[in-house]
Amino acid sequence: MKKKESITGSKLKIIPLGGLEQIGMNITAFEYEDSIVVVDCGLAFPADDMLGIDLVIPDITYLQDNIDKVKGFVITHGHEDHIGAMPYVLKQINVPIYATRLTMGIIENKFREHDLIKGTKRKVVKFGQTVNLGDFKVEFIRTNHSIVDAAALAITSPAGTVIHTGDFKVDYTPVFGDAIDLQRFAELGKKGVLALMCDSTNAERPGFTPSERTVGKTFDNLFEEHKNTRIFVATFASNVDRVQQIINTAFKFGKKVAVEGRSMVNIIETARNLECISIPDNTLVELDQMKNYPENMQVIITTGSQGESMAALSRMANGVHRKITIGAGDTVIFSSNPIPGNEKSVTKVINELLRKGADVIFQDAHVSGHACQEEIKLMYTLIRPKYAIPVHGEYKHLKAQAKIAQTLGIPKENTYILSSGDVLELDEESAEVTGKVPVGAILVDGLGVGDVGNVVLRDRQHLAEDGIMVVVMSLDSCTGELLAGPDIVSRGFVFVKESDELIEEARSVVDEALQRCFDRHITDWGKLKSATKDALGEFVWKKTKRRPMILPIIMEV
Amino acid sequence: MKKKESITGSKLKIIPLGGLEQIGMNITAFEYEDSIVVVDCGLAFPADDMLGIDLVIPDITYLQDNIDKVKGFVITHGHEDHIGAMPYVLKQINVPIYATRLTMGIIENKFREHDLIKGTKRKVVKFGQTVNLGDFKVEFIRTNHSIVDAAALAITSPAGTVIHTGDFKVDYTPVFGDAIDLQRFAELGKKGVLALMCDSTNAERPGFTPSERTVGKTFDNLFEEHKNTRIFVATFASNVDRVQQIINTAFKFGKKVAVEGRSMVNIIETARNLECISIPDNTLVELDQMKNYPENMQVIITTGSQGESMAALSRMANGVHRKITIGAGDTVIFSSNPIPGNEKSVTKVINELLRKGADVIFQDAHVSGHACQEEIKLMYTLIRPKYAIPVHGEYKHLKAQAKIAQTLGIPKENTYILSSGDVLELDEESAEVTGKVPVGAILVDGLGVGDVGNVVLRDRQHLAEDGIMVVVMSLDSCTGELLAGPDIVSRGFVFVKESDELIEEARSVVDEALQRCFDRHITDWGKLKSATKDALGEFVWKKTKRRPMILPIIMEV
Repeated sequence: MKKKESITGSKLKIIPLGGLEQIGMNITAFEYEDSIVVVDCGLAFPADDMLGIDLVIPDITYLQDNIDKVKGFVITHGHEDHIGAMPYVLKQINVPIYATRLTMGIIENKFREHDLIKGTKRKVVKFGQTVNLGDFKVEFIRTNHSIVDAAALAITSPAGTVIHTGDFKVDYTPVFGDAIDLQRFAELGKKGVLALMCDSTNAERPGFTPSERTVGKTFDNLFEEHKNTRIFVATFASNVDRVQQIINTAFKFGKKVAVEGRSMVNIIETARNLECISIPDNTLVELDQMKNYPENMQVIITTGSQGESMAALSRMANGVHRKITIGAGDTVIFSSNPIPGNEKSVTKVINELLRKGADVIFQDAHVSGHACQEEIKLMYTLIRPKYAIPVHGEYKHLKAQAKIAQTLGIPKENTYILSSGDVLELDEESAEVTGKVPVGAILVDGLGVGDVGNVVLRDRQHLAEDGIMVVVMSLDSCTGELLAGPDIVSRGFVFVKESDELIEEARSVVDEALQRCFDRHITDWGKLKSATKDALGEFVWKKTKRRPMILPIIMEV
Repeated sequence: MKKKESITGSKLKIIPLGGLEQIGMNITAFEYEDSIVVVDCGLAFPADDMLGIDLVIPDITYLQDNIDKVKGFVITHGHEDHIGAMPYVLKQINVPIYATRLTMGIIENKFREHDLIKGTKRKVVKFGQTVNLGDFKVEFIRTNHSIVDAAALAITSPAGTVIHTGDFKVDYTPVFGDAIDLQRFAELGKKGVLALMCDSTNAERPGFTPSERTVGKTFDNLFEEHKNTRIFVATFASNVDRVQQIINTAFKFGKKVAVEGRSMVNIIETARNLECISIPDNTLVELDQMKNYPENMQVIITTGSQGESMAALSRMANGVHRKITIGAGDTVIFSSNPIPGNEKSVTKVINELLRKGADVIFQDAHVSGHACQEEIKLMYTLIRPKYAIPVHGEYKHLKAQAKIAQTLGIPKENTYILSSGDVLELDEESAEVTGKVPVGAILVDGLGVGDVGNVVLRDRQHLAEDGIMVVVMSLDSCTGELLAGPDIVSRGFVFVKESDELIEEARSVVDEALQRCFDRHITDWGKLKSATKDALGEFVWKKTKRRPMILPIIMEV
């Protein structure tokens, strides 16, 4: 029956709109005839060369151009790389949002900050529930991940069913809620699944990711070893299960717990309201109240496990936190691993804590939230998809999953690593990348969304590298003759005291260049500016082997 | 006898002049009465916030102030973090240099580039040889490391003997030369050693670092698996033994080898001249000649294993190398691990290579050059020093070694983690940090040594973050009245097209602020500039939540 439909009917289009070029920006359009549903709407954190940028969101031109088709967003879980762009995107296209309970709670926190609570349609979905969105039916299936209420999606159109795992691991003994619904994946697999889009983050790692619960045992041991000290635990703000386990252990040892760091306080409060976390009475106290308890009764859960310089942990390590200073006699547990790229800043905080005399534990108090190779194999084996479309990871991770899929019998030609904007058209008969839609990264800087582009970034890089020399001169508006200047002011180039002589020489060089122009009756401002740039640029390069930005400004008096 | 001397005589001073605050800058002064010897003279690579800086060298004011005492430099091995600052420092204090053969060869390469070959005194020292330097005797002892000819130093003064391991590992089956001279360390230990300054890089890692030779077996296997492809191997330019092993394997498989990357070509040539590497006839060919051989006979050893964007490997991956492009059918072996901080750039190159269709191997083809915990324990047990002074590593590594030393019976109070500039005075009786000498990091940018300081760096950071707005105005030199402007020119702030209106508004804001000054007869330039900065800064922050640098310039006409 399904097969027949797909022969006579249209194909399904799968279009990653964020994806690879910008790691983190998870947003994928599923299109069948007049219906589009969008899975996730994440932001990315700026790459190293995006100077001054706060965050990066996807260009959704394609959705705007096809707004009549867009039935809504279906969200897998509440991490920034899956929901962070929602406030920005919803201001552009206001369509309904479907998500599980905690995921929606976190989205609503964001919407409150952006004043979007009124006027947006949001529906909380239960596991096992299916929502109808045009030609699509989307079923939310329970998984496990480093945040509560994570879902996989079974997205069914007349062309067949695609399963998108979201971010997941297989946890047989989760801290909150049930284990991943392997039976349902098996059932869908038995009926026939067109494609599997599976989390690739840990596709290079052999074996199985350990259960979140194993970390609880580690906390028990660490709290026992350090029972006479004040204990700090740094972890990800959104890892509610981790916080639950820290609280459980603290309770066992009769300790009081305070939570520090705005993002973590917010999420814990949301999780508490939704009963995703259970805190024994009289265990949680305000940070201000901690001073009423002896140090060995104090446990402080904090943000900053990635070494973020403005987060609570860094401030406490550097002695610039308003309420708490970490020092000798304290124990600091990193319940996290550095995200790639953060290794140096994490090490910096660890060194600082050790210098202050704290005992620092940065191994063994964390497990990943993503599936390793054996879990990925399990999913493929339960689902037995026709096509494999690895998602979520750098290219090397997707490639590693593609290899796994091939060892499990998925033909190489049925494995697709999609680039951002690729249109993959598929049904039971065939699959093919048939085109490309416009995609891109929109940079957010302060209140500005998209007003910093490549030109501005290149200028920032140039300024960062060698600074700027501003050359100002006043010309007579009638005669064009030089009334004042050229004056040179530099910033970020060399220290002024060292450069007095250099700047003086540079002034003469520009002066001579301008005189040469005037001698040849050149008064065109563009030409005067070029002459200034060329002469000064060459002089400075010869003298210093540097290329500061040179900015000539002409005033007409 | 020795004990008597130390009671009646002076104490030894150990003063790290680079060290902790600037990881990499290895340089330590040993001072006894009127004699100073300096161990190593390394550079550091700039930290992330040192925008535009090429490299960092130590401030040697202390040595300059005591130049009469300075007897010379004794160098442990030829890595940049131990010799890289020599050309800069030798221009300031020209004292003799003592080093083993390959180390000196590499130093001389540098000196040739800096035109320092004439006029510097250099002496090649053999293992087991002792040089007399004032009150010091310094013996060079063979070790193993990821560069040939690495030495530990036994530094003896009337106050006792200090052993500085340099960077080392214990390799029972090294590729070139003999194993580390454990007997000599034992012998010295038996006689009595005052202090051990031991490499801490891998002090957090349990076990033993495997022999360099194990990598050779890995190459054999990898070359067998990929025998029908062109093979690229990326590794550290200075790892001569690694290159030797690649060449050995290539020779076994009847392949030709070319070396690409200027730094590697230089070091191989030096090693060859000094007979530290042995290359079978007709194996090494010029890169230009490779085209005369079938692809499956080609092996290319290249720099760029750290993902450096300008190195040969990146350029070959990105298709911008003049001679070679890596693509489908090629095998690329990373014979290296990312140095902390380089993880992201290495991954970027790996992703690019995979995208181009190359087979990429980035595991198992590398071993560390530094001692792990069991090797460190071995050294302590052979040497049995009175004091432990962990060196070489971040604070957490030094701390880890201090813990190891304590488990081996060195009392905690005899363990010293020194900061840059600390003066540790010690003899058989006691040890104490008695003072601090001036130290610091001198930034090298282009031809400029030390002309970029904190002010310039802060400006560069500010410029990088939000760009600059230059406000120019012309005032009448007699009346002080505004003749032209204020005009605003921005760079790195927002894209001009987006900002036309904003800049226009900003102009009015500044105009009004200036008028308010003129109305109150304020003509002082400083006050006019402050008024401009304040008004414009507030306006821009309110509008954009950004803080570009604001640079008011007044011209007098």
